[in-house]
Amino acid sequence: MSGAVARLANIKLGGPPSSHASISAAATSSSKNANNAPSADLGLIGLAVMGQNLILNFADHGYTIAAFNRTVSKVHRFLENEAKGKSIVGADTIEEFVSKLKSPRRVMLLVQAGAAVDEWIEKLIPLLDAGDIIIDGGNSHFPDSNRRSRYLAEKNLRFVGSGVSGGEDGARTGPSMMPGGNEEAWPHIKDMFQDIAAKSDGEACCDWVGDEGAGHYVKMVHNGIEYGDMQLICEAYDIMKRGLGLTSKEIGDVFAKWNTGVLDSFLIEITRDILYFNDDDGTALVEKILDKAGQKGTGKWTAINALDLGMPVTLIAEAVLGRCLSSIKDERTVASQKLQFVSRSAKFEGDRAQFLDDLEQALYASKIVSYAQGFMLMQEAAKEYKWKLNKPSIALMWRGGCIIRSVFLKDITAAYRKQPDLQNLLFDDFFNNAINKAQPGWRDVVSKAALIGIPTPAFSTALSWFDGYRTKDLPANLLQAQRDYFGAHTFRVKPEAATEKYPVGQDIHVNWTGRGGNVSASTYQA
Amino acid sequence: MSGAVARLANIKLGGPPSSHASISAAATSSSKNANNAPSADLGLIGLAVMGQNLILNFADHGYTIAAFNRTVSKVHRFLENEAKGKSIVGADTIEEFVSKLKSPRRVMLLVQAGAAVDEWIEKLIPLLDAGDIIIDGGNSHFPDSNRRSRYLAEKNLRFVGSGVSGGEDGARTGPSMMPGGNEEAWPHIKDMFQDIAAKSDGEACCDWVGDEGAGHYVKMVHNGIEYGDMQLICEAYDIMKRGLGLTSKEIGDVFAKWNTGVLDSFLIEITRDILYFNDDDGTALVEKILDKAGQKGTGKWTAINALDLGMPVTLIAEAVLGRCLSSIKDERTVASQKLQFVSRSAKFEGDRAQFLDDLEQALYASKIVSYAQGFMLMQEAAKEYKWKLNKPSIALMWRGGCIIRSVFLKDITAAYRKQPDLQNLLFDDFFNNAINKAQPGWRDVVSKAALIGIPTPAFSTALSWFDGYRTKDLPANLLQAQRDYFGAHTFRVKPEAATEKYPVGQDIHVNWTGRGGNVSASTYQA
Repeated sequence: MSGAVARLANIKLGGPPSSHASISAAATSSSKNANNAPSADLGLIGLAVMGQNLILNFADHGYTIAAFNRTVSKVHRFLENEAKGKSIVGADTIEEFVSKLKSPRRVMLLVQAGAAVDEWIEKLIPLLDAGDIIIDGGNSHFPDSNRRSRYLAEKNLRFVGSGVSGGEDGARTGPSMMPGGNEEAWPHIKDMFQDIAAKSDGEACCDWVGDEGAGHYVKMVHNGIEYGDMQLICEAYDIMKRGLGLTSKEIGDVFAKWNTGVLDSFLIEITRDILYFNDDDGTALVEKILDKAGQKGTGKWTAINALDLGMPVTLIAEAVLGRCLSSIKDERTVASQKLQFVSRSAKFEGDRAQFLDDLEQALYASKIVSYAQGFMLMQEAAKEYKWKLNKPSIALMWRGGCIIRSVFLKDITAAYRKQPDLQNLLFDDFFNNAINKAQPGWRDVVSKAALIGIPTPAFSTALSWFDGYRTKDLPANLLQAQRDYFGAHTFRVKPEAATEKYPVGQDIHVNWTGRGGNVSASTYQA
Repeated sequence: MSGAVARLANIKLGGPPSSHASISAAATSSSKNANNAPSADLGLIGLAVMGQNLILNFADHGYTIAAFNRTVSKVHRFLENEAKGKSIVGADTIEEFVSKLKSPRRVMLLVQAGAAVDEWIEKLIPLLDAGDIIIDGGNSHFPDSNRRSRYLAEKNLRFVGSGVSGGEDGARTGPSMMPGGNEEAWPHIKDMFQDIAAKSDGEACCDWVGDEGAGHYVKMVHNGIEYGDMQLICEAYDIMKRGLGLTSKEIGDVFAKWNTGVLDSFLIEITRDILYFNDDDGTALVEKILDKAGQKGTGKWTAINALDLGMPVTLIAEAVLGRCLSSIKDERTVASQKLQFVSRSAKFEGDRAQFLDDLEQALYASKIVSYAQGFMLMQEAAKEYKWKLNKPSIALMWRGGCIIRSVFLKDITAAYRKQPDLQNLLFDDFFNNAINKAQPGWRDVVSKAALIGIPTPAFSTALSWFDGYRTKDLPANLLQAQRDYFGAHTFRVKPEAATEKYPVGQDIHVNWTGRGGNVSASTYQA
């Protein structure tokens, strides 16, 4: 409320910052419905729990909100219950709803991603005026937001696609918000959005992301990273449980300890809570939960987009595929009876306390790799889709309100603030030092897990990626030779190996089998 | 030729097996162009090298082929050169081309995948009669083949989408062919296709794959598996080169040895050749080749399709992403200067001969996993797209003619012949034993590579997948608890943990923070 109240002096109808002059009137109209002049700062369509909670959050900050829903009875129920006594007005028709909005009108959609968004947009277009703003706050796929942004620009309307993270609680008390689209809309919604967003060290976890679908894109990558973080935690849990034989309580204690260090984060905290949570019989409830996870969402979109853009975002990909493997539980159950475990070092050996420290470092290093990959992907997307992306702001938006919020994101924010054009997160001194410190333990964890048969797809891929990334000469030279051998696909030479015969930048084909002597011109017969 | 000649007695115009009675006449008409009666067994459009070589291959086997091309001058050049004196006829117009085809007409397209295929189909439709056959032999994406199959069925035409593998040489001397689509077409093309296909132990590497785009689908998975095989070989090479410090010649010797054992295959053979191939200065040419590999093709399609179908095809995904990492060479070069290698066991220690045997087993085991994943994917695709897929035939088709041809595929063919409904390749006794034998070495290779800093994304993901696949209870129970904690996504219980309060199959939500005592109802603030 304080932010809005503080700006009450700065009244400028229809312009930025948005006017809050009519707060009392709106509150009155909400209860008496007697005032027909436009009174609402923003209209929100879609009264499922996310939409309701965002409205209540806006109202708590002194804004007047018009609420609407396809099933109109839900509007009335909302007004008579949760919205009662607050600066929230309703409407029985879309026309009435629009008539209650101050100019430029701000309409926010919190409806199911997909066709419903387009349908509401089509209903709104004839009712809006040039310069009005439509905000899609749902979980839309970014190509849809790209399309809608262009389409509405043609109609002289301003489109904003905003990722909203933090679930129901976040929506009510302070979500992470990632708006992108038509930047002309930003001054008209900035204060409202930043007022209701989560705060981290006094800064709002909401800033302008970039053009077109950039807001939904960054939200998608956020979710992909969330998949990765969760997979890493699961691998650490599995190693402690099956590798070291710790109890749920003991593992909870480890997570509790980690939550006071570099891994301090919402997900580590709730993992601790979960492991401490006992069922009525006094045993950990988590052990009774079926190990089948779904994956048909934004994590998959992120992995597919990485493949499409040709970016090596391996950790999110493994996290998504890890969920796929978990989902074929019936087949795994059969496999567990048919397949054996064979190893030269079948059991964990060594110093357990040291290994737990190593595990913390393995999780930390893998997480650094995952975020480095995520920022590489966003950087490439900005290039590919011609968006301006503000990297320090992205890290800031993820610091609070959302599932991946953590102390760690403070360090990322700091890194990008120090060097906004930082090529890779790993090149920042802080993270460079951190990963060097983590390496020995990380390597030992991956190494030991392979020997004792605990799957670590995310830890392992992070380490392989790191070892590949820091390698100037990867073995893809052989791969290029193979492709030239069997398909005449040609290759190029390394600059340092260039000669007159093989100049730099030239596509070269060699007749690999045509040279006598040490090369056989065999034709293979299986 | 023998197959065709042997069937000359069996003349039945327009029916299967296709008639070869007019071979001589066709040859005559090819040179004199005097005979106006339909004479060609098949017409092929698209005279790039693949198309030309397939035509020459058909002609070698006694078939008369009509050749056509968008740029007609290319038809004449072909007839006057490579096609001269063979049972190949040309045409100046598409109408003339079609008029030369015996009924039911068989038209094969070898044109660029995408719009060109649709354009030719549109040109052909008005010229063809009910029951005529259009075969797309290009690298089409399977959803396009699905669409075309349905579209042409509406026009009473029969569509075949056929994967053709083996490159230019394969097309000329015996490709692997994977036809799918309208099964009514199969009797009319079976002999022709099987005659020109590669042979493995006397069996043609060509059989009917399944409905709609199944042929192109199986070709796509073939290519994905090819990506995986190549990545595995590259990792073995890298370990030998940088981990053990072997020379190219010494590594070539190892591949030469491996090519006499379980890894005996075309790709291992050419790798040996490549490593033995010296430049003029007497050093291995492969070491001069730039380590940047492209990936915008069928490997990517396979990985994306796996994600879409929710199947854990991790090895192909890592192979594609490995190519992506190779492609950002400039950034890797910078990283190689900025990032350090830190480990408690920085150098390889142990018995080298043993380690090389372990490496062979690591490659073998990872390859088994990759093929198991590939067949799981095809199985799921058949379910999803409602195709009948013949798994023994698929393995057979890959045994010869194509890039992944190998002794290994004989064993896969045998496994699926023994048990056509085999749930997973790893459940076959042969592969079960093989992977048990390979496990100790495989684990040691992955473990040591992690310690000495050589990236092994494919070896590692294969091992993690294997260890996950053979595990009844994965840590996804924690993941489901997390999702329920922060998003009320609900979970289910393990059957063995079911109670009256938590019955099997019910979606359960728990208020994780609402319980006093050992669970804190904290609200996180970063």
